[in-house]
Amino acid sequence: MPNKNDVIRLSRYRNALIRLRALNFVKVFSDNLADATGVSAVQVRKDFSTFDISGNRRGGYEVDEVIKRLNKILDKDSIHNFIEVGAGNLGRALLHYPGFAKSGIKIIACFDIDPAKYKPDAEIPVLPIEELDDFVKKNEIRFGIISTPDLAAQQVLVRMISAGIKGILNFAPIYLRGPQDCVINNINLESEIENIVYFVNFAEENK
Amino acid sequence: MPNKNDVIRLSRYRNALIRLRALNFVKVFSDNLADATGVSAVQVRKDFSTFDISGNRRGGYEVDEVIKRLNKILDKDSIHNFIEVGAGNLGRALLHYPGFAKSGIKIIACFDIDPAKYKPDAEIPVLPIEELDDFVKKNEIRFGIISTPDLAAQQVLVRMISAGIKGILNFAPIYLRGPQDCVINNINLESEIENIVYFVNFAEENK
Repeated sequence: MPNKNDVIRLSRYRNALIRLRALNFVKVFSDNLADATGVSAVQVRKDFSTFDISGNRRGGYEVDEVIKRLNKILDKDSIHNFIEVGAGNLGRALLHYPGFAKSGIKIIACFDIDPAKYKPDAEIPVLPIEELDDFVKKNEIRFGIISTPDLAAQQVLVRMISAGIKGILNFAPIYLRGPQDCVINNINLESEIENIVYFVNFAEENK
Repeated sequence: MPNKNDVIRLSRYRNALIRLRALNFVKVFSDNLADATGVSAVQVRKDFSTFDISGNRRGGYEVDEVIKRLNKILDKDSIHNFIEVGAGNLGRALLHYPGFAKSGIKIIACFDIDPAKYKPDAEIPVLPIEELDDFVKKNEIRFGIISTPDLAAQQVLVRMISAGIKGILNFAPIYLRGPQDCVINNINLESEIENIVYFVNFAEENK
């Protein structure tokens, strides 16, 4: 089974290829993709072989063909409906993040615990958290985003999973784990920043 | 030299310890931290030894002591000033993200190319991008956040680096690399979502 980093690299190749296609590239070599993505050329070839992306090493890979294949692997040809829980600053920004729409991701409703945040008539409605279960089941939603404060996140996770959500992107600053049949990606902005601070300090101290 | 994942684990331990302290824990064992963070107990002990966090394996680690030590390693006792470039939806949400303030991160100015977005008198001013260089030098800023669209990101990166920024958190959906003495963490929300979709599909197809 591929791991998270394998699939992240596929996303990276796809982004790079779309950019190269915009520059009228018809063929690319693993070295081109290596340069554009920071992955080694050997790794590019290995990944393409693992994921059955064919091409002639000498002749290069057909840009259109590879994009088509990556779209299929990453399921980019369908639209994926998401719900979100947490309509605070970050949650509201994500509702309107143009990058999602571009990649076939559609947040179709947001849920919150605070009546002051309800907007049942908005284009993307903000609804009471109590309605989540019915909404998810009725609309057969499989994906969710958590953008609540840390203390609420664990409870929201339980609610999402019991409603039938299978994949979750978690922005709450707490590491969430779910049952085996649920995929959770944790994005902790504070840890990311701590990380940068650490390595900048490290570089300065070891100059 | 430690790698990114090593330091991410330290952040995770710290978050867990702060929560455990709130529950009146005075001592923790590596097994407790393993449970709370999803890291193995062996890895916890290994990390603590690598980063010189002392404790008696039998007697457990003193919560306060370990937090103090982690604060020192992660440089949590100082306030770190950041600038941000890109005052769109996501950029504006990040300016007001409460998680940053809590972790000693202060975005002190934002820069944009669009005059309609300038707000020189706001609490966190939004300024013309042309002022970035002077501002960074005058205020000795070392850290920056990029929250522009993909096409602008590379140019913003060059500008930040030439002004003296050493650590960057990049939210633009393009993989950025800098010179050796600059630390860049790329957060690509679309890849993260592609990842979740991939693994949920994978689990369903292999049931």
